[in-house]
Amino acid sequence: MPILKNNTGLYVDFYELTMAQGHFLNGKSDLPAVFDYFFRFIPFGGGYVVFAGLMDLLEMLERFRFDNDDCAYLESIGFHKEFTGYLRNFRHRLTIHAPREGEIVFPNEPVIRVEGNIIEAQIVETLLLNIINFESLIATKAARIRSVAGDKLISDFGLRRAQGLAGIHGSRAAIIGGINSTSNVFSAKLFGLKPTGTQAHSWIQAYGDELEAFRQFARVFPDRCILLVDTYNTLESGIPNAITVAKEMEVRGERLQAIRLDSGDLAYLSKRTRAMLDEAGLNYVKIIASNQLDEYIIRSLHTQGAPIDGYGIGTRLITGKGEAALDGVYKIAMVGDKPLMKISDNIEKMTLPGRKKVFRYINGEGIFNGDAVVLESEEGVDYMYHPHKPDMFKRMDTMEKEELTQKVMDDGEVIINKESPYQIAQFVQERMAMLSDEHKRFEFPHIYKVGISKQLMDLRSKMIREIKPGR
Amino acid sequence: MPILKNNTGLYVDFYELTMAQGHFLNGKSDLPAVFDYFFRFIPFGGGYVVFAGLMDLLEMLERFRFDNDDCAYLESIGFHKEFTGYLRNFRHRLTIHAPREGEIVFPNEPVIRVEGNIIEAQIVETLLLNIINFESLIATKAARIRSVAGDKLISDFGLRRAQGLAGIHGSRAAIIGGINSTSNVFSAKLFGLKPTGTQAHSWIQAYGDELEAFRQFARVFPDRCILLVDTYNTLESGIPNAITVAKEMEVRGERLQAIRLDSGDLAYLSKRTRAMLDEAGLNYVKIIASNQLDEYIIRSLHTQGAPIDGYGIGTRLITGKGEAALDGVYKIAMVGDKPLMKISDNIEKMTLPGRKKVFRYINGEGIFNGDAVVLESEEGVDYMYHPHKPDMFKRMDTMEKEELTQKVMDDGEVIINKESPYQIAQFVQERMAMLSDEHKRFEFPHIYKVGISKQLMDLRSKMIREIKPGR
Repeated sequence: MPILKNNTGLYVDFYELTMAQGHFLNGKSDLPAVFDYFFRFIPFGGGYVVFAGLMDLLEMLERFRFDNDDCAYLESIGFHKEFTGYLRNFRHRLTIHAPREGEIVFPNEPVIRVEGNIIEAQIVETLLLNIINFESLIATKAARIRSVAGDKLISDFGLRRAQGLAGIHGSRAAIIGGINSTSNVFSAKLFGLKPTGTQAHSWIQAYGDELEAFRQFARVFPDRCILLVDTYNTLESGIPNAITVAKEMEVRGERLQAIRLDSGDLAYLSKRTRAMLDEAGLNYVKIIASNQLDEYIIRSLHTQGAPIDGYGIGTRLITGKGEAALDGVYKIAMVGDKPLMKISDNIEKMTLPGRKKVFRYINGEGIFNGDAVVLESEEGVDYMYHPHKPDMFKRMDTMEKEELTQKVMDDGEVIINKESPYQIAQFVQERMAMLSDEHKRFEFPHIYKVGISKQLMDLRSKMIREIKPGR
Repeated sequence: MPILKNNTGLYVDFYELTMAQGHFLNGKSDLPAVFDYFFRFIPFGGGYVVFAGLMDLLEMLERFRFDNDDCAYLESIGFHKEFTGYLRNFRHRLTIHAPREGEIVFPNEPVIRVEGNIIEAQIVETLLLNIINFESLIATKAARIRSVAGDKLISDFGLRRAQGLAGIHGSRAAIIGGINSTSNVFSAKLFGLKPTGTQAHSWIQAYGDELEAFRQFARVFPDRCILLVDTYNTLESGIPNAITVAKEMEVRGERLQAIRLDSGDLAYLSKRTRAMLDEAGLNYVKIIASNQLDEYIIRSLHTQGAPIDGYGIGTRLITGKGEAALDGVYKIAMVGDKPLMKISDNIEKMTLPGRKKVFRYINGEGIFNGDAVVLESEEGVDYMYHPHKPDMFKRMDTMEKEELTQKVMDDGEVIINKESPYQIAQFVQERMAMLSDEHKRFEFPHIYKVGISKQLMDLRSKMIREIKPGR
């Protein structure tokens, strides 16, 4: 049973195909359309989102096709033969603008802009949302963890608790957000991530005797020996036995790399462990901790002065514990040359009409100081306005600016170079350094300002007045 | 970029391979071992778990192999050539016992028992945990939703918010738990699920005028026309326009199937909508609701008498909102003929030693009335005992019993028939009917009793006394 075949055309919600057939039968196949991807809420109660998943999305979009078997299936569930004939030859020619993968992004700004005919621009909605929402969620969680962990080594241990195949992209996103390595061998090979791991309790138990189990492990892995010390009793058995083995290794000219604590009070145990190791002259042996860790527990351990050198983080990293999903949506902004917007009784749910882009402003200290959503024809703004409160505005023309997005796909083909997850991770850290601490704190972070241009505000006001219920 | 190739051998945590190489180099390749899969906590604060993912697991286990490319990769990250030679020819011959997929299961009972040599039985840990933990989580969430939804039609709309590729197995698990259909076309084809869907706001917007957009949709989908009515204003625009189109369809001998509410107060809007439709003589037109639904909101809507005929449920179903992961673990229980257990300062974290099985007892009313974990040689128990409080026991020999598990894999090959997700879903409902309402309620459900036999208790006590820290 192959999981994802080479073509990804069926990786859609049924209604994408329904609407595609509808547009096709209505003779709208060539109608140009523009869609925006954006999200409304920042997960984890945080102040920023790390944009991730772009290259995975683009590669899956390049394979967004339907083979004969797919078309036969679609006919069997009621799609027209004429339409499946169209799908059989379907090659989208989308143009996509997006930030560089790893960019820091904020709510209510069009992060990705997709342009093509209405069928091709609509039909990729589900795939785009699925990949970008998830990888950005996990990259953001990872960046939060990195922000409290300083330069300590952190490994992703999450595959066993990942939501099924989510682990495949999840481990990649974790590296992008700032995790150093992963236990997930599948993704390590696929994406070029550094694989790491230690041993399970079962190893210790299988050799009957903890000391013997440690010796056997050291014997076969002298250059990467990390011993799990909590199978029986950490301080009375695990650490003394680890010290014995470390001393035996020294005689052979080898060095025990680390011990791993996987249960109990990690602050207390790490302090006692450090003291015992140091007293035995093993100050080079590192202490690694795991067991239900996240950014809050790591911060607490640091506050307590726990002498832990590295962490293994599983469930809470790979599932984005605390937030199941980034709420990204995909909304139409134009058909033909006509701007569109969604009216709603809830003003925050109204969308921004037209072909737009985003300028990021950077102050004299090199710190991000506001993003302005503008119409594509605009070259900058003197002032930007709160999206719904026109009397709240901010002067922008005294600052440097960058365009947030670039063209990443043209005529259906990827036109940017592929970066390794570690290159992207480096970019994340560069951009995080340009975000003020107030936006990075966990408790009630400062809200980053995303405003709109006067021209965009005027266009929206005009459209709201034109669109009447009942039309 | 193929996502999962035909072989699944690399879908492991790095430490599985490390330990496998260790056992291999230590000459332990043929040492027999027994592992148990079990979980400790029921997600969502509920009273039961629906066991799901079995057939996916077994099919992936049948393909648990390493090709030349995998082995070259493993050598490149430091594994021994001698060991990768072993992996290149690796064919596991595991024997696995498990419940029928869809069975209701409870904490601290060995749900799956895996037997083989220590390398093959250990190395599949990550894959087993990954698939079973996730599908059981989602099937359980779906069963909770079904338990309050009566016989109303429910569709899984989750793919766009699924955790990346998690959606593939997630939609299957949702059907197993009691959801009727899915928007996920990929999984619908792969697993034989019923695909469903309606239309997006973009359809309405693309045709400029809501009435015209409804007409165009009815024209191309006369036999499955569901209209989304909240693009501009549900009661002032959407419903009146839908009524107009429904009347036009009647003239052509067609029938509008349903309208969909996707925002606002669903209780209020559904009542007003029902009244407007009925007044227009359209009592056959159904009302479907979506927008951040879960089992609690559906229960609330029913309490309020909302006349909704069907639901579309996305994020909160497909991510198991409220619980990111089932905490299933995989622990060694024997090596050779020697029972093993994990000692812990936390008595609840001790494992049960030996080759075990589970009897489920059923009372005179046909209701599940306790599960007893026993040694494999036992044919039943007169009394079962609380796992940690020997003075709490329960008489069992007056009741009927069933063995919870059956052999599902023998010598590495699947030996059970493949059931469709809908057959499994039928079994779930049969078994749910045998679980008392007190175990099914959401608030402080009655805790289902899982006990152990006297023989198992005595074995464990003896082993605890033998295992001393420092050994």
